[in-house]
Amino acid sequence: MPRDRTNDAEHVAGNGMLSRRIFLERTLVAGAGAAGLTSAAAGSEPLAVPRWMREPGAALTSYGQPSQFEAKVVRSVPAPPNPATQGIGTARTPLQLLDGMITPSGLHFDRSHSGAPDIDPDQHRLLIHGLVKRPLTFTVEALSRYPMVSRIAFVECAGNSGALNAAQAPALDVQAIHGLLSCAEWTGVRLATLLDEAGVEPAAKWVVAEGADAAAMSRSVPLAKCMDDALVCLYQNGERVRPSNGYPIRLLLPGFEGNMNVKWLRRLKVTDAPVMAKDETSKYTILLQDGKAWQFVFPIEVKSIITRPSPGFVLKGPGFYEVSGLAWSGNGRVRQVEVSADSGKSWAAAALQEPVLPKALTRFRAAWEWNGGPAVLQSRASDDTGMVQPSRAQFVADRGLRGAYHYNAIASWQISETGEARNAFA
Amino acid sequence: MPRDRTNDAEHVAGNGMLSRRIFLERTLVAGAGAAGLTSAAAGSEPLAVPRWMREPGAALTSYGQPSQFEAKVVRSVPAPPNPATQGIGTARTPLQLLDGMITPSGLHFDRSHSGAPDIDPDQHRLLIHGLVKRPLTFTVEALSRYPMVSRIAFVECAGNSGALNAAQAPALDVQAIHGLLSCAEWTGVRLATLLDEAGVEPAAKWVVAEGADAAAMSRSVPLAKCMDDALVCLYQNGERVRPSNGYPIRLLLPGFEGNMNVKWLRRLKVTDAPVMAKDETSKYTILLQDGKAWQFVFPIEVKSIITRPSPGFVLKGPGFYEVSGLAWSGNGRVRQVEVSADSGKSWAAAALQEPVLPKALTRFRAAWEWNGGPAVLQSRASDDTGMVQPSRAQFVADRGLRGAYHYNAIASWQISETGEARNAFA
Repeated sequence: MPRDRTNDAEHVAGNGMLSRRIFLERTLVAGAGAAGLTSAAAGSEPLAVPRWMREPGAALTSYGQPSQFEAKVVRSVPAPPNPATQGIGTARTPLQLLDGMITPSGLHFDRSHSGAPDIDPDQHRLLIHGLVKRPLTFTVEALSRYPMVSRIAFVECAGNSGALNAAQAPALDVQAIHGLLSCAEWTGVRLATLLDEAGVEPAAKWVVAEGADAAAMSRSVPLAKCMDDALVCLYQNGERVRPSNGYPIRLLLPGFEGNMNVKWLRRLKVTDAPVMAKDETSKYTILLQDGKAWQFVFPIEVKSIITRPSPGFVLKGPGFYEVSGLAWSGNGRVRQVEVSADSGKSWAAAALQEPVLPKALTRFRAAWEWNGGPAVLQSRASDDTGMVQPSRAQFVADRGLRGAYHYNAIASWQISETGEARNAFA
Repeated sequence: MPRDRTNDAEHVAGNGMLSRRIFLERTLVAGAGAAGLTSAAAGSEPLAVPRWMREPGAALTSYGQPSQFEAKVVRSVPAPPNPATQGIGTARTPLQLLDGMITPSGLHFDRSHSGAPDIDPDQHRLLIHGLVKRPLTFTVEALSRYPMVSRIAFVECAGNSGALNAAQAPALDVQAIHGLLSCAEWTGVRLATLLDEAGVEPAAKWVVAEGADAAAMSRSVPLAKCMDDALVCLYQNGERVRPSNGYPIRLLLPGFEGNMNVKWLRRLKVTDAPVMAKDETSKYTILLQDGKAWQFVFPIEVKSIITRPSPGFVLKGPGFYEVSGLAWSGNGRVRQVEVSADSGKSWAAAALQEPVLPKALTRFRAAWEWNGGPAVLQSRASDDTGMVQPSRAQFVADRGLRGAYHYNAIASWQISETGEARNAFA
């Protein structure tokens, strides 16, 4: 029984977009939960005592896990073509089932090139060598003696959302399209501190980072980034980094494409030129329409996605809906997110959840009153460098349909009259 | 082979306390990792290829877990006196082994009064009744239709650190003394939104919150708090709240003692007076020296603890150490944390990790050069209301040694000449 008591004055854009005031002030949102909200008989005790109140609950445990009723909230892992490649590929974060900005570590996306090594931290070493005055080898314990810093940062695979760089809109959901994106609180030692300890030579311009997986995954990182905000991380969301995210140490390059945030970090070679590793030549370059490619494009451009509603959700009749999503920029802070319900003809400013942190995910929320008719939901983010997320038409005009990396165009969910959402090019 | 290249000018307080500049600027911290840091032969390849690089790593998984080498990083769960009470008691967070401000949900402390119920979210209901115009029953799905907000907030059991309210300093570590403290990103619906939906009567002054565990754990909450920043939470660190923390919904009262943040929330009765529940009469009151008790003292007072070094750690010879810890206040933001290495005779300002959020844990870090002699490490926090963490002597003078709740005095770790840390009253 949908109700509509929102004030017409709150409509700030077409097709039902309401003012974000609802998130910022105390505002009546009457009947939002209509489908599962019932009036209780006043004065009576309408709540039955459920089964789980009639017996003692579960014992205290040393390490908690999610409820058995949340068994569907998992990373998606495609079946490998053969058992030897079971560690090669992606495990995607179910962003459509999460809220807030933190990704729990068990659901942080994983892109691995030869599986997660089972590293004994007592035997692991980090070598810093090349153009340095004193080549140094660190144990994990030695690293943990240096001053640390923490920061909340997103990591996004350069190939995330690449499925949208196609001629036809694929029938996929948030997780399948955009699930190579996560955000955590990372704690570690500034790489600058370690490089200073080794003493960088004047000729140095790059640092080649190598992982201790069987792929020896390697990337070249500009020295300037290493000296700026790069971290050698020991902790993720409070506890030690998880094996699928680089245990015992991973490189964090805030805002740079995920592949460069080398997991299982074992070697940093200071050089005067990039090493031209497999993952910066045959992969992780941006192919253009004319067959040329951009190489060494590192920061993730400003971007946003709507996580709810999205494919898999069905709107339960007209009325109030929160349009919730994530915005981020590898170049700085999210400055604004706008949401449209009419395919970009008009836009309403979304509420940004504080704190809005640089190079971190920012949760945005917009208020929408669905009238039961067709709608196309879109979000458009801009960052504090002035960059604005491009339309799909603009993105395709600039880059064509051949490249699968750094896709950051505005995405669209088409809402049908039956309340179903599907991916669309609109 | 300890080295000391720190500048004497950086000593800002007695017994080796250095300037926090080391955390805020790019400063050489030469040889900090001395014990596990070795010079590598220049030009050679000194790193052996470890076992885990010679074979493919582990398969991608749908829900990640910590490394097998971190099996000791768990909540401490005392053995229950008998199997019927295995869900009654505490599971304490291993704060000494964590870093940053977020507590991973698997390690969030758990204080339960009759174990964790295994609640089917489709059958769970939240009733709002009492002094309201329209008593309402919400399904979990109905709640998830309302506008949500996220905030990072600590929860601390009112009995945390109560072991220090004793005549002799117990030989316990951070986890055993202070482990009923955690911090997470919580996402949910403002309780004010739900109360507005029900329509609160003018006579209302309190809200009695009841949990759906077998203890039907209940507390009375001032209406003003419910209308201020209280949240009915569905998400913890991005995913649904864990069973031991209240799945499918828990009440969050930012800054208020943990017991009031009712888990497995099933009922909110709006009343004109507190219900005088067991947990606000026989427990969770502050017993004074004269036998009287303070009741309804809700906010957690400003407090801090040093988590590293702390009992269980052994300093590996003189040299640089990061003194790392947590500070918090239920009344607002942490404004300052000072650290002393000479039992409070002199203090150095610690670096506060940004963002410093109200009613959240704040990680602080101080730089210390241990000279190998005896030392007593202490931290002292103040908040933006002007409150300063009291000395132990002051706390005992005010409250005596009979009360075990809301203990927030300055804590001390005594460092011996062999580098071992132990709890002390100093």
